[in-house]
Amino acid sequence: MKLYSFFRSSASYRVRIALNLKGLDYDVIPVHLVKGGGEQLSESYRKLNPNALVPTFIDDAGAVLTQSLAIMEYLDEVHPEPLLLPGSALDRAHIRSLALQIACDIHPLNNLRILRYLTRDLKVSEDDKNAWYRHWCVSGLAALEATLVADSRTGTFCAGEKPTLADCCLVPQVANAQRFDCDLTGMATVMRIHTACLDLDAFARAAPANQPDAE
Amino acid sequence: MKLYSFFRSSASYRVRIALNLKGLDYDVIPVHLVKGGGEQLSESYRKLNPNALVPTFIDDAGAVLTQSLAIMEYLDEVHPEPLLLPGSALDRAHIRSLALQIACDIHPLNNLRILRYLTRDLKVSEDDKNAWYRHWCVSGLAALEATLVADSRTGTFCAGEKPTLADCCLVPQVANAQRFDCDLTGMATVMRIHTACLDLDAFARAAPANQPDAE
Repeated sequence: MKLYSFFRSSASYRVRIALNLKGLDYDVIPVHLVKGGGEQLSESYRKLNPNALVPTFIDDAGAVLTQSLAIMEYLDEVHPEPLLLPGSALDRAHIRSLALQIACDIHPLNNLRILRYLTRDLKVSEDDKNAWYRHWCVSGLAALEATLVADSRTGTFCAGEKPTLADCCLVPQVANAQRFDCDLTGMATVMRIHTACLDLDAFARAAPANQPDAE
Repeated sequence: MKLYSFFRSSASYRVRIALNLKGLDYDVIPVHLVKGGGEQLSESYRKLNPNALVPTFIDDAGAVLTQSLAIMEYLDEVHPEPLLLPGSALDRAHIRSLALQIACDIHPLNNLRILRYLTRDLKVSEDDKNAWYRHWCVSGLAALEATLVADSRTGTFCAGEKPTLADCCLVPQVANAQRFDCDLTGMATVMRIHTACLDLDAFARAAPANQPDAE
């Protein structure tokens, strides 16, 4: 198995956590999103992933999969131990909803290509760009906090006593928030879960600082 | 079953298509995203959906689900006929990836709240706002076109001869693109699939113009 990954990409980070939780061996192929204008924009990479985004996953038979959530759902179907989507259909919907709150409502707005468009095309100042980043990150995580506080399934992790798909998304998003100095006051549940996750080897090994391409 | 929906919201539109494809009866509860500053921001709605976004789905037992993709996955597990995610684990991953290309990489960037932030907070001109919209919509749909053209599973619909989760996402995204006069030249596959979908009653009935809150 191979994972085209960038150490700081939070979508790559999610899949690294999922692979580690399932105890799967994989080779990381670094794709540098900044160097040389971005290796993800090369013709050869675009053939694998027309969206020119990381991660891209190659399974043992050579099948190419894109989109972090689709890759993690696939891993959960093919390597179900431990399940990232456990429980009833309602429980699974709840876990998916938490993951999508991050993957659809926070992360896409703060992706590198978006920040570039803001500064290069819209001539937004560095301060306004950072305010944009923090606005979506903080308001999105505050909504996640409210969801977690209101739900009786919230435990040591986002949905009970074992990490799920939602935790695979939460930890990289908090890492982004911290990198951009977001004010995470009032997000006690999110931060408690973040700490519990990083106590686990599967999460710690997936962290940006522990990647072969870390800078 | 109840669906809190806004006629023009493409995330709501996706779920309406899925419910119709499965032949399920549901009541639409309109949430007007513009009127009075946005009904989705009311305290009562935020209790249901802390993200203050549509749709929100209430099942027959009163369970509250948010996030369009999580709702559609839930419907597929509980009402599997016809399946929106058919086939092998690899096929399902492919369908999810197509859906997420739209739900993560296009739609979040062009949501109403984003456009409002651009004009109100960043003082972006109307022309630049429209250019932003078209940029993400057109580049995202072009990547989707490339993926569909390259994959042998592409058929009358995104993945074969029956509509799937991917088609539930494609049609509302094309509707948005058309509303903002995006240049869809070169997207022959996307547009062919769009037409095939709208020939089906389940898609046509879900369209914004056929909603109780249509303007």
